[in-house]
Amino acid sequence: MSTLERVYPANTDIEPIKAALAAQGRELRDFLGGKGSNLFIMTNQGLPVPPDFTVTTDACNEYVALGQFPAGLPEEILAAMAELECQTGKQLGNPDNPLLVSVRSGAKFSMPGMMDTVLNLGLNDAVAEGMIKLTGNERFVWDAYRRFIMMFGDVVMGVKRHYFEEALDQVKEKEGVSNDVDVSPAGLKKVVAMEKAIYEQHLGKPFPQEPREQLLEGIRAVFDSWNNDRAIAYRQMNKIPHNLGTAVNVQTMVFGNMGNDSGTGVAFTRDPSTGEKLLYGDFLLNAQGEDVVAGIRTPKHISELQELMPEIYQQFVDICDLLENLYHNMQDLEFTIESGKLYMLQCRNGKRTAQAAIRIAVDMVEEGLISKEEAVMLVEPAQLDQLLHPQFDSKQKPESITKGVAASPGAAAGQVVFTAKHAVEKAEKGERVVLVRRETSPDDIRGMAASEGILTSMGGKTSHAAVVGRQMGKPCVVGCSAVEIDASGQSMNINGNTINEGDFISIDGATGEVMLGDVPTMDSEIILALRGAIDMADAPLARLFAEFMPWADDIRFLGVRTNADTPEDSSLAVALGAHGIGLTRTEHMFFGEERLLTFQKMILSESPEEREATAAELLPYQQEDFYGILKAMDGRPVIIRLLDPPLHEFLPKDPASVKAASEVSGKSEQDIMDIAASLHELNPMLGHRGCRLGVTFPEIYKMQVRAIFQAACQLKKEGLNPVPEVMIPLVSIMGELDLCAGDAHAVAKEVLAAQGVELDYMLGTMIELPRAALIAADIAKVAEFFSFGTNDLTQTAYGFSRDDVEGKFIPAYISQGLIMVSPFESLDEQGVGRLIDIACQEGRTVRPDLELGICGEHGGDPDSVDFCHRVGLDYVSCSPLRVPIARLAAAQAQVKSPR
Amino acid sequence: MSTLERVYPANTDIEPIKAALAAQGRELRDFLGGKGSNLFIMTNQGLPVPPDFTVTTDACNEYVALGQFPAGLPEEILAAMAELECQTGKQLGNPDNPLLVSVRSGAKFSMPGMMDTVLNLGLNDAVAEGMIKLTGNERFVWDAYRRFIMMFGDVVMGVKRHYFEEALDQVKEKEGVSNDVDVSPAGLKKVVAMEKAIYEQHLGKPFPQEPREQLLEGIRAVFDSWNNDRAIAYRQMNKIPHNLGTAVNVQTMVFGNMGNDSGTGVAFTRDPSTGEKLLYGDFLLNAQGEDVVAGIRTPKHISELQELMPEIYQQFVDICDLLENLYHNMQDLEFTIESGKLYMLQCRNGKRTAQAAIRIAVDMVEEGLISKEEAVMLVEPAQLDQLLHPQFDSKQKPESITKGVAASPGAAAGQVVFTAKHAVEKAEKGERVVLVRRETSPDDIRGMAASEGILTSMGGKTSHAAVVGRQMGKPCVVGCSAVEIDASGQSMNINGNTINEGDFISIDGATGEVMLGDVPTMDSEIILALRGAIDMADAPLARLFAEFMPWADDIRFLGVRTNADTPEDSSLAVALGAHGIGLTRTEHMFFGEERLLTFQKMILSESPEEREATAAELLPYQQEDFYGILKAMDGRPVIIRLLDPPLHEFLPKDPASVKAASEVSGKSEQDIMDIAASLHELNPMLGHRGCRLGVTFPEIYKMQVRAIFQAACQLKKEGLNPVPEVMIPLVSIMGELDLCAGDAHAVAKEVLAAQGVELDYMLGTMIELPRAALIAADIAKVAEFFSFGTNDLTQTAYGFSRDDVEGKFIPAYISQGLIMVSPFESLDEQGVGRLIDIACQEGRTVRPDLELGICGEHGGDPDSVDFCHRVGLDYVSCSPLRVPIARLAAAQAQVKSPR
Repeated sequence: MSTLERVYPANTDIEPIKAALAAQGRELRDFLGGKGSNLFIMTNQGLPVPPDFTVTTDACNEYVALGQFPAGLPEEILAAMAELECQTGKQLGNPDNPLLVSVRSGAKFSMPGMMDTVLNLGLNDAVAEGMIKLTGNERFVWDAYRRFIMMFGDVVMGVKRHYFEEALDQVKEKEGVSNDVDVSPAGLKKVVAMEKAIYEQHLGKPFPQEPREQLLEGIRAVFDSWNNDRAIAYRQMNKIPHNLGTAVNVQTMVFGNMGNDSGTGVAFTRDPSTGEKLLYGDFLLNAQGEDVVAGIRTPKHISELQELMPEIYQQFVDICDLLENLYHNMQDLEFTIESGKLYMLQCRNGKRTAQAAIRIAVDMVEEGLISKEEAVMLVEPAQLDQLLHPQFDSKQKPESITKGVAASPGAAAGQVVFTAKHAVEKAEKGERVVLVRRETSPDDIRGMAASEGILTSMGGKTSHAAVVGRQMGKPCVVGCSAVEIDASGQSMNINGNTINEGDFISIDGATGEVMLGDVPTMDSEIILALRGAIDMADAPLARLFAEFMPWADDIRFLGVRTNADTPEDSSLAVALGAHGIGLTRTEHMFFGEERLLTFQKMILSESPEEREATAAELLPYQQEDFYGILKAMDGRPVIIRLLDPPLHEFLPKDPASVKAASEVSGKSEQDIMDIAASLHELNPMLGHRGCRLGVTFPEIYKMQVRAIFQAACQLKKEGLNPVPEVMIPLVSIMGELDLCAGDAHAVAKEVLAAQGVELDYMLGTMIELPRAALIAADIAKVAEFFSFGTNDLTQTAYGFSRDDVEGKFIPAYISQGLIMVSPFESLDEQGVGRLIDIACQEGRTVRPDLELGICGEHGGDPDSVDFCHRVGLDYVSCSPLRVPIARLAAAQAQVKSPR
Repeated sequence: MSTLERVYPANTDIEPIKAALAAQGRELRDFLGGKGSNLFIMTNQGLPVPPDFTVTTDACNEYVALGQFPAGLPEEILAAMAELECQTGKQLGNPDNPLLVSVRSGAKFSMPGMMDTVLNLGLNDAVAEGMIKLTGNERFVWDAYRRFIMMFGDVVMGVKRHYFEEALDQVKEKEGVSNDVDVSPAGLKKVVAMEKAIYEQHLGKPFPQEPREQLLEGIRAVFDSWNNDRAIAYRQMNKIPHNLGTAVNVQTMVFGNMGNDSGTGVAFTRDPSTGEKLLYGDFLLNAQGEDVVAGIRTPKHISELQELMPEIYQQFVDICDLLENLYHNMQDLEFTIESGKLYMLQCRNGKRTAQAAIRIAVDMVEEGLISKEEAVMLVEPAQLDQLLHPQFDSKQKPESITKGVAASPGAAAGQVVFTAKHAVEKAEKGERVVLVRRETSPDDIRGMAASEGILTSMGGKTSHAAVVGRQMGKPCVVGCSAVEIDASGQSMNINGNTINEGDFISIDGATGEVMLGDVPTMDSEIILALRGAIDMADAPLARLFAEFMPWADDIRFLGVRTNADTPEDSSLAVALGAHGIGLTRTEHMFFGEERLLTFQKMILSESPEEREATAAELLPYQQEDFYGILKAMDGRPVIIRLLDPPLHEFLPKDPASVKAASEVSGKSEQDIMDIAASLHELNPMLGHRGCRLGVTFPEIYKMQVRAIFQAACQLKKEGLNPVPEVMIPLVSIMGELDLCAGDAHAVAKEVLAAQGVELDYMLGTMIELPRAALIAADIAKVAEFFSFGTNDLTQTAYGFSRDDVEGKFIPAYISQGLIMVSPFESLDEQGVGRLIDIACQEGRTVRPDLELGICGEHGGDPDSVDFCHRVGLDYVSCSPLRVPIARLAAAQAQVKSPR
């Protein structure tokens, strides 16, 4: 810290600052903000940047902590300003040679429009008169002055902008003009006088004529704006820490409105929408920056500058090339031309669509500009989602009637149904449906599978509906509290709109929007091409995708598997790049109608013998399930988790289902209701489930293991290469694993011997309870692999039931700044991650070749994938549509910290 | 291991064996079993012990693992037998000079009667004839032989004893005698022949005449008996590990039935019932050991031996003194006199009542025999329970009609009531009641407090009823599944007995027994004396207690606090030795009728302002509560936990309560039911509770903190010395603690300033979630103390909801040997303990004077107290009646591993 100052001119040599920051583990942008560091870099490169200095983020943080300027800071700022005066040869407040500056915020991460900016600072009555003499342009000066008073009054002093705008409006009315540009110089001078009066009226003191006072107040205002409401909200939404602070850039003003040899514009070095390599942007002659944005005049395309100012244009093109070469990235630029001279006001890496991101990355590699490692860093993994889910055609999208939690991206439109049964019935008739439920349960699985999308009034991003929705790749909007389902279950009301079963609605799982009617959707080109529904020749985006993604695969260390419960999902995941299955949930397979009745019969069994007999009836179904998945994944590892959820989830609830179960099982309806009541739990999440079922009802697990190995033998005999890995869930006690693993190995051995088949397989366990992580060294003696179930591990580490807390207080925690992001969305490294770290290290000590992976929701979250890489896992597993995201995130993790 | 053998003669020098074992961290009894090591020690001391050798526990474990004798073991046994023959000068199977031996089990921990024993081994037809010649005592020899065949057939070969007994019965009938001793020698000879036939008939082979075959088979049988059902069950009940194995002692037989200069007996060196210093025991002349136990002849008191055999008696008394001096403990002895020579067959530390344990410990210190450190080791902490709870007079106790889980010790009798309301009503009329519920909830608190005892049909040892029962010191039997409460709620049925409201029942919370009628109880003398209800002069046991317990206090390092919610409980705990309160639960205070309605009104508030206003109405109540407790604990620290349970627990459920709440709150009944529904949670244990309420409804915590400090100021002004410690529950995220602690400090500062009072106080947190333990270094920056909430920490580390699993699968886990004891009963060191260890170490790194304690149920469990001592806590906290147990356990922990 000792070598660093709080204020730096941009022409300072960067290298010593970088070195001092590196010693603190920081980068230039941490210290000077994004804007400030880029101005430094451009200045250091000798580009035409108006001289500026930057007040650092450290100074801002000192200010925020103290609630006032730290001692010495004003003096340092004024010294930097004196230096700026020397550099420009102009002086702040000197009417004969005035210096005007802009005061702009610039945080580490771009927060466009969230914080404050003051332009034309340095103007006062005397300077205005002096500038008129100097420029002979009375209109320009009074316009600049009136803009400055308004901006200073609004931004710095908190007098609402509209009070000042009224002055201009009055003058316009008096002069009978409607456009600002048509107001006379005299009129603008009058506006200045009126604004000064408004200022004094609201603040009880005159508009400050001392430019140094203006400067310090302006900087204070920018510091304060770091913690204004919209900046805080923006940081929350974008997961930007609240303790970074903003830098402040004080830059010499240049004017694009000095005549027709002046102008101003913004440009991208490539097309941010498609990625095409061409200059993309707009400019206006004789205008200031805000005019381009304001839309009062129609700007010209940047290419037209070539004809108007060929030399300037060429200079700009050269600068674009230089900056792309320097940053190895597409740039977003602001420039001004003052009296025939080009000035660069800002450069930054440009935002872009997913498609553009890939195109740019691929092109830049082909141009020899960047390496493949750099290319994979140029695409945001989460963005890939956009490319894979069907989407609404934005041009045809009507206004939404409400908005819920965006849980699983994609567009879905269909007839509203309120029960899983109706969903299945209508889908069988070929109709598209959207399933609307208060919340979903495993009972609804088939209905969910039959639906285009799912809408619930309860639940959060990891509620059952959300998890299964993502798993199935179904668009899903949850926790949509405006949805009021009628008691009859025949209709719902959303903000006054009554929607009956059969009416069409559309939901956008990427935004959470709910719309009336059947909004048309487009299927993702990439998915169509990967499924073979369209030809690669007709799918340029898919070709681009197919060119880009293997680079990620070449780079990444971490494997990527998928969570899939069906052969279809498995095949899709393989097409999307999965090299195995990290989690097959066996319970969903019991929800076919016939199967469910048999499964219920098994639960209702009153002796081990009876249970064993009924389990045997389920065996053929399970064997068929496993056969299909192992076949689809031929040669790739498939982790199959034995039954996990509590049995009461499977029992009938309504009278008709009870009756059906009674007929199949031979138990009385009263007995069935009694058994269901006896299985009821106060906290089912912490109850009789997972391997606890394997201990108390060993017949179930034995049947499942038998089905796995019989299926594998069948495939082996067909010449295929099944690679099953049996997973025992919810272990917290060694005895549980010893017992279940012993049973499983015994059954496997018996089946393989009976079939005369040799087969390598693995047996492992979920690590999803804190105690399991803490006794990992013991567990690894028996388990050949660990799969971290980070959903449950997060629930138990925090003592959070995701069903209960996500909707209730997690949002409040985020909005109060207690946490940045839900730990169910992005893995908590400090607590949950530490448990994973303990388990990995201690497990591997006992068994060096222990296979380590993650199968929780976090496996598809880029930040969590990065953690998984660093903590030493072998693979992550996620739902099929998130496989490309995980592949890319894994590659980025390797680039950032090579393993 | 290399220096240790598998078979040892008892006259081997002990010291090299001890040294070799010590290198393995083991003791003599781990290796030779309790019986074997004591025979070794007595032999080494030169006492008259019949020569013997011991087969080690290691050999047993090898046998168990292999399922057969390990290679070489039979040869080693036979070699030891050869040595025994040399030592005794007799030979196994030699009719002219026969050696007979006993083969007895002897595990590390005494498991009386659980494993197998074979006596008189070595007898066969030839030896029997030879012995008759040698002794001239035909009756003695045939009797010994027939006993041996029966024992060998039963114990070793598994032919049920009654088959052999029939032979004796037939002969007795034939001879017309009713006592075994009256059967003629010829008759006994006939029994031998008949038994041999029975043996052959059942086993298809003749009774083995080869003594070495008898020996090896006998040893095998003892090994096998380690894993018989009753041994396994005994170990489960007594928390003895299943992997210890048993040693086998092969000892030369001596005979107390050789005539009137022979005899046999058992004796204690002190009275095991009262502890009085006198020889206590029985003997019989001319008898074998089993005759003393069988009760066929009335044994004589040991003191009578002095007249009959004064020299033998004196020798025995001297041996008793020698052994007490050697073991520093009261001894339980078996001896035999053969033809005027005394033999010691066994010695061990004697079992004793709690009262005797204390008396013996105190006496031995006074005698100068042991130190105070040894004295505190002589009393089982858990035994103290017996002394503190009222008890049934065992003479008047009828047979129980059923038995549930013994949850809170003590005796209770009263009229059955089925609702908390009726309990209160009857109690107010001065009637004694026993509250019977399916399970209890916080709603029942007042009814529980009004009852003599609590009986539930559901729940385990840490169910609500059990926890609150122990907390209140109320006898409590839970999980009594035979209790079927009638749908009307007016009566119940227990195994065919219909019991109506108002009928008397009695429950024994120490045994789980439920009895019909009003069984008379006696109050504990100690409690009466401590409460001042009786004079110390009339309370010898209380005097003994008051002499003994301070020794524990002088020795222990660990502090002992109490969990108490009322001034009455607080005072009792102080009388029982608590030096502070480790946990005051504030929620129970809201269950007074008027308070509950106000509390409900607060929950139903729809804005922070409304909530703040209603909270203010509760303030006087809370202030009064805290005033009372802080006053009772004057000068001692009192940890007050802010509101913890989810709000829906407090909301009305039945229509009448909803109506009452509606009247008080002004909300409609429908609104109230809607709010209750919106607060409903799927997993309330992991839901919106603890500091999560403090974050979302800060008005509640602020009110509670205000009440604490206003009460403290009031006391301070009265000249007292309140020491409040504010505790924030369920922290898992730093932001929660930052926010709640900030609020609390602000309110405290404001109250102290307003009242003009200076007061030291602490603010700390529960560590009851795994993540809290893992981020302890951060938490310790804000928290001045940690209190480990091991109930919740156990629930979340294991993913167990104690309400759901204790009754359901924990018992199955224990009976299947997956775990030794419920982790809710005794703290799990490997998982939960590791989290505590992490938190202690990392918390103290940040704040070296961090105060560390435990307030979970485990604070009163001796094994858990031992762990708390070792892991470095400052104190444990438990319910008032367990305070003495914790004091003693803490002293023992310090003796075992000094801090």
